[in-house]
Amino acid sequence: MSIRIGILGYGNLGRGVEAAIKNSKDAELVGVFTRRDPATLTINTPGAKTFSADDLPNMKDDLDVLIICGGSATDLPEMTPKYASMFNVIDSFDTHARIPEHFANVDAAAKGAGKVAVISTGWDPGMFSVNRLYSTSILPNGQAYTFWGKGVSQGHSDAIRRIDGVKDARQYTVPVPAALEAVRSGKNPELSTREKHTRECFVVAEEGADLARIENEIKTMPNYFADYDTTVTFITEEEMKKNHAGLPHGGSVIYTGTTSDGVNHVVEYKLTLDSNPEFTGAVLLAYARAAARLNSEGVSGCKTVFDIAPAYLSPLSGEELRAHYL
Amino acid sequence: MSIRIGILGYGNLGRGVEAAIKNSKDAELVGVFTRRDPATLTINTPGAKTFSADDLPNMKDDLDVLIICGGSATDLPEMTPKYASMFNVIDSFDTHARIPEHFANVDAAAKGAGKVAVISTGWDPGMFSVNRLYSTSILPNGQAYTFWGKGVSQGHSDAIRRIDGVKDARQYTVPVPAALEAVRSGKNPELSTREKHTRECFVVAEEGADLARIENEIKTMPNYFADYDTTVTFITEEEMKKNHAGLPHGGSVIYTGTTSDGVNHVVEYKLTLDSNPEFTGAVLLAYARAAARLNSEGVSGCKTVFDIAPAYLSPLSGEELRAHYL
Repeated sequence: MSIRIGILGYGNLGRGVEAAIKNSKDAELVGVFTRRDPATLTINTPGAKTFSADDLPNMKDDLDVLIICGGSATDLPEMTPKYASMFNVIDSFDTHARIPEHFANVDAAAKGAGKVAVISTGWDPGMFSVNRLYSTSILPNGQAYTFWGKGVSQGHSDAIRRIDGVKDARQYTVPVPAALEAVRSGKNPELSTREKHTRECFVVAEEGADLARIENEIKTMPNYFADYDTTVTFITEEEMKKNHAGLPHGGSVIYTGTTSDGVNHVVEYKLTLDSNPEFTGAVLLAYARAAARLNSEGVSGCKTVFDIAPAYLSPLSGEELRAHYL
Repeated sequence: MSIRIGILGYGNLGRGVEAAIKNSKDAELVGVFTRRDPATLTINTPGAKTFSADDLPNMKDDLDVLIICGGSATDLPEMTPKYASMFNVIDSFDTHARIPEHFANVDAAAKGAGKVAVISTGWDPGMFSVNRLYSTSILPNGQAYTFWGKGVSQGHSDAIRRIDGVKDARQYTVPVPAALEAVRSGKNPELSTREKHTRECFVVAEEGADLARIENEIKTMPNYFADYDTTVTFITEEEMKKNHAGLPHGGSVIYTGTTSDGVNHVVEYKLTLDSNPEFTGAVLLAYARAAARLNSEGVSGCKTVFDIAPAYLSPLSGEELRAHYL
């Protein structure tokens, strides 16, 4: 029996989840739900429908899991608790400081409805978190280093686009090779923000815009760029389309630890992703599978990737997993 | 409250578990159990005792978990079910073809006694298995490649030592750089056994031994060496002691998969271990923590790394984990 999935929100991540459903043998897309007019939406799955988000309260029996593809700033804090009171839900909430509050709100809603909600899935938070946890549990005398990139940061690209005179922008986060090397060698370096990553910005300016001012506004922008070595390259719209259309990303969690005097170990989990939203969508779908199965076993409440045994992500039986993957 | 641990067997792995207990804040070593005369054993933990394995049936209330550090060929198939009927147990059973049978035997014993048994932990099977499972669950259109090394294979070293005229031997398994490169690039190559790994053997021969015969016996040994490009280097006892005393190991699970046409992802989990037994021992201890906690929640039966949520490996609370590792 297929897991019946609804997608709420049809931006990059929603389309990534849709691609993941196409790749799976045990999930089907019932429909995409939107806060816009559903008639304006064209989706990539024949047979699936578009609905208004307002239809969700009437479709409680039609979905096994609702995957919520909204933003962490304003969408998810409101949406995830709301829909956890109706469905098993998955989100990719990534505002770190607000996770305790979000967890509590979602947990109350999900428990009240007897549903499972998995928050903060994807790759960071998500698979990177799982790897930090496994490593620190195995090697308590150690340290985790997380590097991101090379890849497009959509938040940083958006921040540049808000600058006056900027038509389009793409920002790549790039780990500093010397820092990666020092960590991998087990040297346990203390690294400042600036020493870990650089930021490469490609900007299409409006005609006649003051390029020097734009470059300066980018490089001095607090939180986003001021603490980094940042390069700004102005390019044409055509170059942007041709060379920067994709959303590649990735990175490494490198954990170095010691088990006795002078005995060191390095554990690295590394992702190289052609498409950040498609990989993230694939992780969300795997946790949707877990949520449906956990709920069918009577579990309810809010969970994170830490609380879910790996076997729940797979459609295969315990026997099959032990035979082929152990 | 500390988790009270017993170690059965005091070879390399038993000493690795002992080192891990020293590194942990929430576990204590009650004692090392041996089939030899316990009076002949000197252990590295002040305050811990040595016991005969025959004492175990009388110590059911003294241990929370027994970590069984025996060999997969003959020890564990007998020991793990036997002691799972008395204690929560952990083993590192790695004879792949016999896992279903071992699982069934251990499961029956553990369920009968209301205990938790975690079998086949360590890094392969173990952490490598977990990574194969996560990746295939996220990227069902993909392929897992496992490379081992560079590191000492104790089984292959032992096989060489059994050859007439060999005094000592150390065998390193080495991944072929070109194969690693092809896999990491996402080329999805089909690789033969010979194309993936080479085997480097360092041998101390007895005085007057026929070196050409020894080299030939190694290189043509079925299963162990015949399918590989193998090099044999004869060294002195002093060189062996000086350059080959450690038991380093490691390797990579590289998973390449696609989410839509031409959109590829590479996931690599890589271990570089100064000491195979110390890292393996640390993994076993993390799963001992999980076994104790699962059992205290009323769970019983045989589990593998697939069945245990990552949070169970950590002494930290859910709140702490979400705050610091998510």
